[in-house]
Amino acid sequence: MKQSQLFTKTTKETPKDETSFNAQILIRAGFIDKVGAGMYNFLPLGLRVLNKINNIVREEMATVSGQEVLMTALTPKEVWQATDRWDNFDVLFKLTGNDDKEYALGATHEEIVTPLAKKFLCSYKEMPKSIFQIQVKFRNEKRAKAGLLRGREFIMKDMYSFHTDQADLDEYYETVKAAYFRIYERLGLKDLTYLTYSSGGAFSKFSHEFQTLTEAGEDHVYICPDCQVAVNREIIAEHNFCPVCKRADLTEAKAIEVGNIFKLGTKFSSAFDMKYMDQNGDSQEVIMGCYGMGPSRIMGTIVEVFNDERGIIWPESIAPFKIHLLSLKENKAATAIYQELINNNIEVLFDDREDVGAGAKFADADLIGCPYRLVVSSKTLERGGVELKARTSDQMEIIPLDQIINQFKR
Amino acid sequence: MKQSQLFTKTTKETPKDETSFNAQILIRAGFIDKVGAGMYNFLPLGLRVLNKINNIVREEMATVSGQEVLMTALTPKEVWQATDRWDNFDVLFKLTGNDDKEYALGATHEEIVTPLAKKFLCSYKEMPKSIFQIQVKFRNEKRAKAGLLRGREFIMKDMYSFHTDQADLDEYYETVKAAYFRIYERLGLKDLTYLTYSSGGAFSKFSHEFQTLTEAGEDHVYICPDCQVAVNREIIAEHNFCPVCKRADLTEAKAIEVGNIFKLGTKFSSAFDMKYMDQNGDSQEVIMGCYGMGPSRIMGTIVEVFNDERGIIWPESIAPFKIHLLSLKENKAATAIYQELINNNIEVLFDDREDVGAGAKFADADLIGCPYRLVVSSKTLERGGVELKARTSDQMEIIPLDQIINQFKR
Repeated sequence: MKQSQLFTKTTKETPKDETSFNAQILIRAGFIDKVGAGMYNFLPLGLRVLNKINNIVREEMATVSGQEVLMTALTPKEVWQATDRWDNFDVLFKLTGNDDKEYALGATHEEIVTPLAKKFLCSYKEMPKSIFQIQVKFRNEKRAKAGLLRGREFIMKDMYSFHTDQADLDEYYETVKAAYFRIYERLGLKDLTYLTYSSGGAFSKFSHEFQTLTEAGEDHVYICPDCQVAVNREIIAEHNFCPVCKRADLTEAKAIEVGNIFKLGTKFSSAFDMKYMDQNGDSQEVIMGCYGMGPSRIMGTIVEVFNDERGIIWPESIAPFKIHLLSLKENKAATAIYQELINNNIEVLFDDREDVGAGAKFADADLIGCPYRLVVSSKTLERGGVELKARTSDQMEIIPLDQIINQFKR
Repeated sequence: MKQSQLFTKTTKETPKDETSFNAQILIRAGFIDKVGAGMYNFLPLGLRVLNKINNIVREEMATVSGQEVLMTALTPKEVWQATDRWDNFDVLFKLTGNDDKEYALGATHEEIVTPLAKKFLCSYKEMPKSIFQIQVKFRNEKRAKAGLLRGREFIMKDMYSFHTDQADLDEYYETVKAAYFRIYERLGLKDLTYLTYSSGGAFSKFSHEFQTLTEAGEDHVYICPDCQVAVNREIIAEHNFCPVCKRADLTEAKAIEVGNIFKLGTKFSSAFDMKYMDQNGDSQEVIMGCYGMGPSRIMGTIVEVFNDERGIIWPESIAPFKIHLLSLKENKAATAIYQELINNNIEVLFDDREDVGAGAKFADADLIGCPYRLVVSSKTLERGGVELKARTSDQMEIIPLDQIINQFKR
């Protein structure tokens, strides 16, 4: 992509109505645009990042046999009444249609997925099954001041699994847990992300959150220094020791919840009378699990974790482009390099702008945060190549023109 | 994908609460699920088709320099008041947030995109620009009985372009028109789809719809037998002749609107005071165009157009799978073929179900409508291969086992 053609441009000004760091810097760099509290447009650079996160999530859900669907965002009042959540789930946006029926905007989809799965999963032979979607969700939050960390409208991956018995759910739950850690590893977040024990409800002792440690977090967790597990604030009074090694000297830390998984048991199958026929021809209640993860919140988390005073530092797996190619008044030579990178399917943002000075181009590259910066100038060409600098390093080196592709091709 | 693992199964029963053919057959085949009037879940097979349509649209929008974004579905009341549409656009779903602010669910996005573009497009040097999104849209329809053809919640591609003058918009508009016809060609709809002249508003004599002829259509158009253009009902009283060749004997036909493009002029830039600096340093109003297309409606249209008494007949470009491979009690041989197809990146749905008879498998293949059916049975293996039948034909032929990949690889 040529930067001269890019829809957005960067700005040095911090947006006045935005208090969260992740939103401030993403707005300044042209990744997102604020429509209102907790409501953001994803702009071309931002949507590229979001789609890359979505695709990593999608690939890992496929490894645990998740089948992708897309459920409605409009959900009828009746299904929420069936689970007693119409009046008891305070973040539901509610509205009335021209048909005088009432609807909620989907904040989560147990109430839609259970009646749906009931239509297809009738026999023990048809389970286990697992379906997921990556979808816009809505939560009528009173307080939405954390940028992408707490949206009134946000992107969520929600998966739901259906099992004949608890042992099968327990086994599947562990495979999803492992898939979640693979996702955090691919996103560069694994070392900072703690499996966090939280309250389980009627059907299991614990549920689990995945909490990424950062001062920007709104959550408080109590971490075990040995096990990379934590206990959340909700249950710390009762469980003030590490659930794995039993150490009692847990340390408080701030964190962002980047995922949560939950054994639902028969809570929803019971509400919707979802039963299956077992091997003996007897009718049994279906056992369910649910597995949430917010790609837009993860995008905000990554920005909070990976940055410096000059801008964002994207992990390569989700960077909008791998390379930011800067032409300093050498557009002819730079265009040839740009074309060669494109021809080799290497993602590159090409700063070909002729009316922008070197300082502004360097500042933009740091702010936008692509992993590698390539500079083409008369000086680098005299030295026979281009200047390469990783966003994470201050070291620069000259790469000969005929070595550029080799440098970046896997 | 193994059919034994597929989340859905087909049904012979026509859903009772569904009067539209496209929804009936898509529900029976397991592509979609009805949540309420004009509200459908996309199931694994249906989402595969929808995503393929989306990707064709996305590719063609890229050819006209469209940059993809994702705007919010929640839109503040103020922006609709600025264009006088809060009280005058009867399909808006309206709701109130916990912040006591009022919102509409996005039915179209001129009111969001114009203030957004105003932030980035300030100079003649920064135009033309064009941005689009593929997004869930909401319309509070009183009557939503046409399945995917008229959703209260549906998928829409909406693109908006920004220009310094009318001539630039006029030129761009024609390139988008051509891109639309490339999309219909790739979807197999081009021969049936008529460029249809409709009312233009203050800034141009006509806007244009793309109308696909079918008895299932809710629209009436008046077609020229020579020019593959039409006039819509709205303007036929004034323009009762072909806009191209001037023939007056137009023929009435029923059709589905599968796209529409519109020269907005300064209607929205004026409402939001979106101006740019021209070459002389003078402030000028931005000229806009908008370009809509509904991938979910297109999916319904294709089902209405391409079917027979046995089921759907998907065009290869958007079929959920290219091949439906049926094992008739020969799962070992069929699994080897399945694996080889997978290894060669050929999309295949493998009916490996052991408790389903041949008749039901054939019926499912016809109902689901993949372009090619491959049958593996003791008979076909005795004849040295598999039986190939195209969904569009009654002819069958035996393909030797070692020729299967060659047959399908491009």
